[in-house]
Amino acid sequence: MTLLNLLASRSSRMKASEIRELLKLLDQPDIISFAGGIPDPALFPAEAIRDAYAEVLGGGEAGAALQYQVSEGYLPLRRWIAGRMGKLGVACDEANIFITSGSQQALDYLGKLFLSPGDTALVTWPTYLGALQAFNAYEPRYDRLRPEGGNMTPDAYRAAAAANGGKVKFAYLVPDFANPTGNTLDRQQREAVLDLAGELDIAVIEDAAYRALRYDGEGVPPILALDCARSGGIDKARTLYCGSFSKILSPGMRVGWVCAPRHVVEKLVLMKQASDLHSPSINQLVMHRVAESVFDGQVEKLIGAYRERRDGLLGALEANMPKGVTWSRPEGGMFVWATLPEGIDATELLARSVKEARVAFVPGNAFYADGTGRNTLRLSFTLADRRAVTEGIPRLAALLKG
Amino acid sequence: MTLLNLLASRSSRMKASEIRELLKLLDQPDIISFAGGIPDPALFPAEAIRDAYAEVLGGGEAGAALQYQVSEGYLPLRRWIAGRMGKLGVACDEANIFITSGSQQALDYLGKLFLSPGDTALVTWPTYLGALQAFNAYEPRYDRLRPEGGNMTPDAYRAAAAANGGKVKFAYLVPDFANPTGNTLDRQQREAVLDLAGELDIAVIEDAAYRALRYDGEGVPPILALDCARSGGIDKARTLYCGSFSKILSPGMRVGWVCAPRHVVEKLVLMKQASDLHSPSINQLVMHRVAESVFDGQVEKLIGAYRERRDGLLGALEANMPKGVTWSRPEGGMFVWATLPEGIDATELLARSVKEARVAFVPGNAFYADGTGRNTLRLSFTLADRRAVTEGIPRLAALLKG
Repeated sequence: MTLLNLLASRSSRMKASEIRELLKLLDQPDIISFAGGIPDPALFPAEAIRDAYAEVLGGGEAGAALQYQVSEGYLPLRRWIAGRMGKLGVACDEANIFITSGSQQALDYLGKLFLSPGDTALVTWPTYLGALQAFNAYEPRYDRLRPEGGNMTPDAYRAAAAANGGKVKFAYLVPDFANPTGNTLDRQQREAVLDLAGELDIAVIEDAAYRALRYDGEGVPPILALDCARSGGIDKARTLYCGSFSKILSPGMRVGWVCAPRHVVEKLVLMKQASDLHSPSINQLVMHRVAESVFDGQVEKLIGAYRERRDGLLGALEANMPKGVTWSRPEGGMFVWATLPEGIDATELLARSVKEARVAFVPGNAFYADGTGRNTLRLSFTLADRRAVTEGIPRLAALLKG
Repeated sequence: MTLLNLLASRSSRMKASEIRELLKLLDQPDIISFAGGIPDPALFPAEAIRDAYAEVLGGGEAGAALQYQVSEGYLPLRRWIAGRMGKLGVACDEANIFITSGSQQALDYLGKLFLSPGDTALVTWPTYLGALQAFNAYEPRYDRLRPEGGNMTPDAYRAAAAANGGKVKFAYLVPDFANPTGNTLDRQQREAVLDLAGELDIAVIEDAAYRALRYDGEGVPPILALDCARSGGIDKARTLYCGSFSKILSPGMRVGWVCAPRHVVEKLVLMKQASDLHSPSINQLVMHRVAESVFDGQVEKLIGAYRERRDGLLGALEANMPKGVTWSRPEGGMFVWATLPEGIDATELLARSVKEARVAFVPGNAFYADGTGRNTLRLSFTLADRRAVTEGIPRLAALLKG
């Protein structure tokens, strides 16, 4: 399927699989792409990772690295993660940490754990596309979570869920530098999510994939930390924190984690035994070594590089975009979210932009569970070097002006 | 939970999670264990794997190895596998190959693809425990497949499934050196499975995890090869072949595959996008290099080592076991299956054996979907060195005689 055919065929919301198809088609050298949501491979700590594989496979650990492993994951890595969670205000130990094959697998398992067909998941409008895709397998409906204010009453959420034959099961959100908007919830908004979840007696799935990538401003405690403080400790919390090494160290190694009450971890372990036994042993041993040695330095390196790219993109938008176009100013993460004047369809714009301006982005309505948001788009700045912003953004802006 | 508590608490069939708990508890230096179903880590091609990680991460491929990857898997690896499948009589190309995180993930996905609650899966009595665990998540019932002869009529299978509110969806089997029995189906038996599947119009899931490990006798074509020959090519076949590198190169890298009609592969790819995006890129790049360079030599090495261990175990059983105990004589794989006289419960025997003889095995009834087979047990020979068989088997035999 060619890209233009794909775009021309879109009468409704693009699916995640179509977005991925789109990204493959966009991978052409003369296209300036703000579409992919991937880290810059030039910034991977490839040398540290290479050394760690060599050390693990060259010493007494080779047998363990290449052999089957327990489903909950490699104990030293789980301990290291528990220590990091402690620094974020979440007192926990290895029994609260479950290793996943990236945080996508955490979303899949949590969907499987909570959702029966017809149940309701609360998500923001827009939200992370991969979460919708993971949850969709379990046939929920979605209702809208508005952490910025304006939620329905608990009774109204419950009534809407019951009218569809199910119950509200969880609220899912990306509180730090969200994909796709780049927005961050302040402490009060996080507390309000916990209030609502408490009244509904539902779980909160906190997707913290971008959390370490803060370029300015003060960090806000994880929802899980606030939950532990009010509930009396992690094993009484309702929040399930999904973390990942993908954005900091390497997505290709597929190592993420869930930090959650022990009774939830125990269920996830059984699920993993049945579904893929365990995440690759060798990658867990290596990730542990690499995290111990370079995690903090790598975060600093990425913050320096991505902050500059974010600033470059924001500056180019400011300098070039016509009136009526607005955008988010993220304090971290990978994405800027732009809103076009009403009536401009970003999917149609993408078709023209790829053809005429050779500039790509992801149309925003893919991220809306209800298929709205047609006048929005997502721009990733992780690969946005000086040329990309100084050439690409003016070309995109010219299209919008024309 | 202590081992003896665990065993004492068993009034019914052990679950896979309990077996795994058992295996952890059995990991004591003075226990001679025939329980684990794992390859010998001393035989892993650790050096070749170490070199491949160093090469992949030291050269121009580092970025791709550490980055996100397409959900269907790394193309050169899929091509290599397609070539191997061709040598087994399955003409196919990369569009028929889907990379999984071990063949356990293939079983999970195929269960998800085919089974709705109440549907029927046909499995042998006994069958691979991990398959039951993967399928159980989708709430099927099981009916008995007898490839050795004695199947019900298609109408009877259909009626039994309908009486439970579902349909027969697939037949699952391990045709070569099965886990747990060690038995291999001959060509006629494989053709009969295809006949039955054709009459029922269901899929056949061929679990080929042990296929390369043949120690004597002639190879039998994969069911998929026979299916392709009668159906006119892989894209018209009903057989889904699950392969794995776990038993030959390394289980800890978690790389397996499905070889199947293109329309099935396409569905599996969407499932994988939603569930974990892709198997680790780096392990796929490395597995491709390692498979290209050492696969055949590694198979030879394992055949030499495991054949000797199988012969040692069979010899010790012959020399020591009392009358009334019988066992399989596998032409390959990892397991010997023993049947005790009626009335001896292998779970009770294990409790005594661990306490009095310090010898361990897996009680066979865990492998029966209906919880029968209480007088059976599985002995793995992959770690059975001379001492294990010359000391362990006489001690186990003495218990049975006493």
